[in-house]
Amino acid sequence: MSGAGEGDRVAEFTAFRKRMNERILAHDNQVVRRFFALDTQTYRDGALDVKTKELLGLVASLVLRCDDCVSYHVAECRAAGVTRDEMFETFSVGLVVGGSIVIPHLRRAVDFLDQLEGSEGEGAVPAEKPAHDHR
Amino acid sequence: MSGAGEGDRVAEFTAFRKRMNERILAHDNQVVRRFFALDTQTYRDGALDVKTKELLGLVASLVLRCDDCVSYHVAECRAAGVTRDEMFETFSVGLVVGGSIVIPHLRRAVDFLDQLEGSEGEGAVPAEKPAHDHR
Amino acid sequence: MSGAGEGDRVAEFTAFRKRMNERILAHDNQVVRRFFALDTQTYRDGALDVKTKELLGLVASLVLRCDDCVSYHVAECRAAGVTRDEMFETFSVGLVVGGSIVIPHLRRAVDFLDQLEGSEGEGAVPAEKPAHDHR
Amino acid sequence: MSGAGEGDRVAEFTAFRKRMNERILAHDNQVVRRFFALDTQTYRDGALDVKTKELLGLVASLVLRCDDCVSYHVAECRAAGVTRDEMFETFSVGLVVGGSIVIPHLRRAVDFLDQLEGSEGEGAVPAEKPAHDHR
Amino acid sequence: MSGAGEGDRVAEFTAFRKRMNERILAHDNQVVRRFFALDTQTYRDGALDVKTKELLGLVASLVLRCDDCVSYHVAECRAAGVTRDEMFETFSVGLVVGGSIVIPHLRRAVDFLDQLEGSEGEGAVPAEKPAHDHR
Amino acid sequence: MSGAGEGDRVAEFTAFRKRMNERILAHDNQVVRRFFALDTQTYRDGALDVKTKELLGLVASLVLRCDDCVSYHVAECRAAGVTRDEMFETFSVGLVVGGSIVIPHLRRAVDFLDQLEGSEGEGAVPAEKPAHDHR
Repeated sequence: MSGAGEGDRVAEFTAFRKRMNERILAHDNQVVRRFFALDTQTYRDGALDVKTKELLGLVASLVLRCDDCVSYHVAECRAAGVTRDEMFETFSVGLVVGGSIVIPHLRRAVDFLDQLEGSEGEGAVPAEKPAHDHR
Repeated sequence: MSGAGEGDRVAEFTAFRKRMNERILAHDNQVVRRFFALDTQTYRDGALDVKTKELLGLVASLVLRCDDCVSYHVAECRAAGVTRDEMFETFSVGLVVGGSIVIPHLRRAVDFLDQLEGSEGEGAVPAEKPAHDHR
Repeated sequence: MSGAGEGDRVAEFTAFRKRMNERILAHDNQVVRRFFALDTQTYRDGALDVKTKELLGLVASLVLRCDDCVSYHVAECRAAGVTRDEMFETFSVGLVVGGSIVIPHLRRAVDFLDQLEGSEGEGAVPAEKPAHDHR
Repeated sequence: MSGAGEGDRVAEFTAFRKRMNERILAHDNQVVRRFFALDTQTYRDGALDVKTKELLGLVASLVLRCDDCVSYHVAECRAAGVTRDEMFETFSVGLVVGGSIVIPHLRRAVDFLDQLEGSEGEGAVPAEKPAHDHR
Repeated sequence: MSGAGEGDRVAEFTAFRKRMNERILAHDNQVVRRFFALDTQTYRDGALDVKTKELLGLVASLVLRCDDCVSYHVAECRAAGVTRDEMFETFSVGLVVGGSIVIPHLRRAVDFLDQLEGSEGEGAVPAEKPAHDHR
Repeated sequence: MSGAGEGDRVAEFTAFRKRMNERILAHDNQVVRRFFALDTQTYRDGALDVKTKELLGLVASLVLRCDDCVSYHVAECRAAGVTRDEMFETFSVGLVVGGSIVIPHLRRAVDFLDQLEGSEGEGAVPAEKPAHDHR
């Protein structure tokens, strides 16, 4: 609940996401599979570049208060070259639009970002994941 | 946050729910008690059968992104004879109506369903609970 | 806001939806177009029949408090043979899951249903629409 | 959508609510009827007085962004003796908790309050309604 | 509800927003006033430029399904030079993240954009408003 | 997810909140910092007293289903002298307005309250925190 004190939140998050995405896609449901494919397609380079789209995904996740989605897009944003200042400005939009109810999610977002930066040397999330794999 | 790696999520979930429902109903607040009774009544057989009503409860819980409610209705749906294909079609409606923000909850729903099926032999959730006990 | 007193709410709703869907799909954005196609596919007959899926769409729309989506699924449910009793049981699930905040939307849902039944003779919504056209 | 320029918003709102509540309660669905009764009971004098409970109903409606619910509780709050300063402090909590997304609803709340105060002499909402009639 | 057929939606929206913002700020509540000022500050040029921030505001408004907020940011985006292709890519992110429940709001967003482009010659919204005036 | 069985949830929650608030405010983003200051100001004594404002914050947090925000306001309410009866009446408003989807959060709220009362003797949360420190 509080999101406090996870030992290796980045690795755990990545492993669970990967395992369960495989479980979900293993079931023969075409609507679910197409939705996952469409989700991947959404963030591809187009009229807007990948970085801008990831920022859009991040702020949308933040105001909808989905911790896993926020973590996912924080990692993607970093991989796309978003600086910490840009990240915080995106957070500020999410905070003002979504209100103080966003604060606990912001705390976990910054915690995740801190851990991501701390675990950088070891080739964590961004390096590991092959493509936009459905948050 | 990520919902990864719980040892015995089904049993833990059931125990906490049971204990706290008792704590809540122990307090003399008639509105709260009546709400709990009404919640139980809602899913009884009527013009729609129990199975359909549990599917309605499941999809409503999924689009509102409440993990505990989803877990509860996944267990109830199984007890009412919902197949895995039917479960996934319900998930697909929740996913398309609610969007990618639903995905992390879908992952935890499938994880819970997997654990539920794995723990079946031991007389888990459905057997234990006496009636619709307020998710 | 209050949704009171519209002269011909059913016809107006249908016309606006049709016109704007065409405007949206006229723009060359593949993600948007695929989403609309996927939305249509979601409610097709499968492990669950069309009627059950429309009930799922209705309760999901109700708890998410989207009047247009509710109106759309109320019309689809009627076309799929849902009775007024079944409709109200679905409303009751939405009301208990979503709370009193759902009441204003329930009022508009019943108003729409009343108008739909009143306008039946004239071959309104269900007759007009060719297929599941994206609420 | 914009909520602008309604001629007699208070009277229209009251009439539609009354008419549709009767339509809803006319249908023989016990869960729906009990929910409506429970809703009425919720705001009765108890450990907290009516005024405080109406303020709670108002702020909950505001952060959930339900215009009709906000209008209803604004009227009830006035009937319970809430001053304009107290109303605005309640709005401020709703605004900070819920974020800028609340602003359009705040605009309509203040518009409704203005109209309510303007229509006072004519024995509007508070006088007309017999009891807490389900927003 | 359906958002269909408003005569001059852009002008009406602008006038109501302006009038009610003045009413709200006329009341001596410092928290409310500071929130409005903070809201304005949020979208100023910084590490991210105004255009990107308005896109963030747009997608956040879309997934939270606030029509007035969407209208406001659609107008601001146009004023900041966002093209129709970029607007639709932002819509596509909002649609995939938020799900089909977003569709009715997307319809009204495109309708508003159409009207905005149609009313351009007459010096509508962007010309009229002095600054970021609190959606 | 289920919120079951945390050893020392109160202390853990307080420590994580404190640490991350410091991390967030350490970053030079004026909008974020001003939002945090505004949040603190919101609950100060005014036309409504601190106790009423904390009850407003609690019910708003409950219907928006934010566990951390609920925990925070439960602690603040107790510090402001709210009795258990008053707390439950506030819960009842949140439950009826927000629906059964609120129940899991209500369970965790009561669990937190129980732990808070149990840990009272040791000078827990209320004593530790200097002021309204941004949930």
